[in-house]
Amino acid sequence: MLDFNYMISTKILFGKNKIERLGEELKPYGKRVLFVYGQGSVKKTGLYGAVTDIFAKNNMVYQELNGVQPNPRVSHVRQGIKICRDHDIECVVAVGGGSVIDCAKTIATGVYHEGDPWDMFLQGDSSIKKALPLGVILTFAGTGSEMNGNAVISNEATKEKLAIHHDALRPRFSILDPTYTFTVSKTQTAAGTVDIFSHVLEQYFSPTKEAFVQNRLAESLLKTCIVYGPVALSKPTDYEARAQLMWTSSLALNGLLGYGRISDWATHGMEHALSATYDVTHGVGLAILTPYWMEYVLTKETSDKFVEYARNVWQVTGENDLAVAKKGIQKTREFFTDLGMPKTLREVGVKENALETLAEKTVLHGDVGKFKKLSKNDALIILKNAY
Amino acid sequence: MLDFNYMISTKILFGKNKIERLGEELKPYGKRVLFVYGQGSVKKTGLYGAVTDIFAKNNMVYQELNGVQPNPRVSHVRQGIKICRDHDIECVVAVGGGSVIDCAKTIATGVYHEGDPWDMFLQGDSSIKKALPLGVILTFAGTGSEMNGNAVISNEATKEKLAIHHDALRPRFSILDPTYTFTVSKTQTAAGTVDIFSHVLEQYFSPTKEAFVQNRLAESLLKTCIVYGPVALSKPTDYEARAQLMWTSSLALNGLLGYGRISDWATHGMEHALSATYDVTHGVGLAILTPYWMEYVLTKETSDKFVEYARNVWQVTGENDLAVAKKGIQKTREFFTDLGMPKTLREVGVKENALETLAEKTVLHGDVGKFKKLSKNDALIILKNAY
Repeated sequence: MLDFNYMISTKILFGKNKIERLGEELKPYGKRVLFVYGQGSVKKTGLYGAVTDIFAKNNMVYQELNGVQPNPRVSHVRQGIKICRDHDIECVVAVGGGSVIDCAKTIATGVYHEGDPWDMFLQGDSSIKKALPLGVILTFAGTGSEMNGNAVISNEATKEKLAIHHDALRPRFSILDPTYTFTVSKTQTAAGTVDIFSHVLEQYFSPTKEAFVQNRLAESLLKTCIVYGPVALSKPTDYEARAQLMWTSSLALNGLLGYGRISDWATHGMEHALSATYDVTHGVGLAILTPYWMEYVLTKETSDKFVEYARNVWQVTGENDLAVAKKGIQKTREFFTDLGMPKTLREVGVKENALETLAEKTVLHGDVGKFKKLSKNDALIILKNAY
Repeated sequence: MLDFNYMISTKILFGKNKIERLGEELKPYGKRVLFVYGQGSVKKTGLYGAVTDIFAKNNMVYQELNGVQPNPRVSHVRQGIKICRDHDIECVVAVGGGSVIDCAKTIATGVYHEGDPWDMFLQGDSSIKKALPLGVILTFAGTGSEMNGNAVISNEATKEKLAIHHDALRPRFSILDPTYTFTVSKTQTAAGTVDIFSHVLEQYFSPTKEAFVQNRLAESLLKTCIVYGPVALSKPTDYEARAQLMWTSSLALNGLLGYGRISDWATHGMEHALSATYDVTHGVGLAILTPYWMEYVLTKETSDKFVEYARNVWQVTGENDLAVAKKGIQKTREFFTDLGMPKTLREVGVKENALETLAEKTVLHGDVGKFKKLSKNDALIILKNAY
């Protein structure tokens, strides 16, 4: 086990009607709020009204930043920062999924950043010092952003999608009410499940050999996705399925699995290049790329890990290790397909002549992957295979 | 999944030489420290010197409370509270295992409690409001006290052993350096492993049927004990084994497994009655009682859970559910025996005519157990079986 510092400070309020606690939770942070949300579904579901009622009851003044899209744009971040500065905002409330939360996080820290917020993504995490307090009301299970200090933002001008990470970005609290995800569409539910699954895999496929408890914990979360992803798809209002996925989503990327070992993140690297260019849903991109990444990095040297994965997660049996490993990959692909995910980049509108550029973008800031380091050429082969 | 509020605020500094961070971590809390430790092994290992050097370098003034014993006494707590009040102590540093930490926690909150600290244990958790900041340097893996808000204290006068629980008792930080556990004796290492195992079981054997991810996480920790307990026994300086057990110990009782479901804790109830009376090592008491508890509560109604346990944790196969369940219990007993634990209460010096009193003490504050509620008579049968 490698050394680590554990810091999972976000308070989680999990369950039905936990929104009733919102006023109380915001009290320590001030009265002037930036209220960030997405493209209006919160108005349909009544959540908008519930939140603004609580603001009113607690004599809080709020400004709105709405219309945050999937693959949230830095232009929205700039808008939010301006509102914060103009209105002397004291805290941020994000209602939505990962895109809204990531946008809100970047605003919360961008307020303290001199110059353009995109600079933080180029300069790296050390440019981040502090952030306004952030509270989250989650409406989508997948990204894990509700319980970590990561934010991923797209720059529409440069077609880049980059991440920042800092403990200051961790929400102070997140309200996780599984009933808010009852209305998430089948496709989005499937994409969210794949996103959770992929977050776990990125940490599971690690070059750190000695990570026994972390590996077993990771397998626990993978099994939960395998059991409850299909249930949430076929019964969108199944509380237990939504609850299991929601909590698993948070545990998958809050640090628990990553502490004490190195993580990979190559597939996310390729997918970010993809969705920055094509505006593909993140989980869909991951569903396509993951099995091809697995096939490419499966070698004699790495086969142990694939065997462990196949046997423990998919209960694959058999004597021949290579066959077992391959069967595990096949099971992964089938799982994604059964969730209704596409199998190729072609199906989501990627142009074949764009693959070279996607590979270049994947390694724009250096090689990716720690389980298996990928050069531009490696990435290109995977992308071609996935085409 | 049941509703819950997640709050695991303790910062963990995990790895070799993390003690170098002690001065920095204490800075926000003040200069006047109460330094709590046990029966002198910290002097032998050099940890005492390392800690006091850091105090000196950071211009901190410290008072000592030493000699804290296993099954820590309320008399020690009283002493510590007096020191805190006399010297206007600002924060507490505990160096040791669960006993030292629990004593330190109770002192930290007892300072703010008017009247005798034992009253808090009789009045219950609502009597606790706040506590002095506590930093921990852990030297023993087992109790999980380093990452939770629980404290168990014995009253030597009344021969009672009771617990308090409050978020205010959570250490602000805990330094987990697995090398500090290299010198823990075989018996104590085994007892610590059983303690971890038992903490997981108390939460795993739950009446809450819908707790899929929690069950899988619990099994992960059980498997880690099964693999690394024996390694730590046979190779006391095996870093990985010590590291895996140390981190598993913290995860086993920090809330992660318990959030979203009801836990049992009947075996701990009986064991506390036992060790309050006989000063038996807590893990030893648990090793004896757990298999007998399992045998007693295994019925047609509860057998599903035992089958899940046997199959998932011990890879027991077979068609006959009852046979599978029984095999899981047998495996549990063998695991404890292989670790060198005794099998009967007789072996640890319990008198047969004391069993009635132990049963009475178990249910002194009401029936125990949520997976299966135990009356005094139930407890007595289990104790007799375990004799």
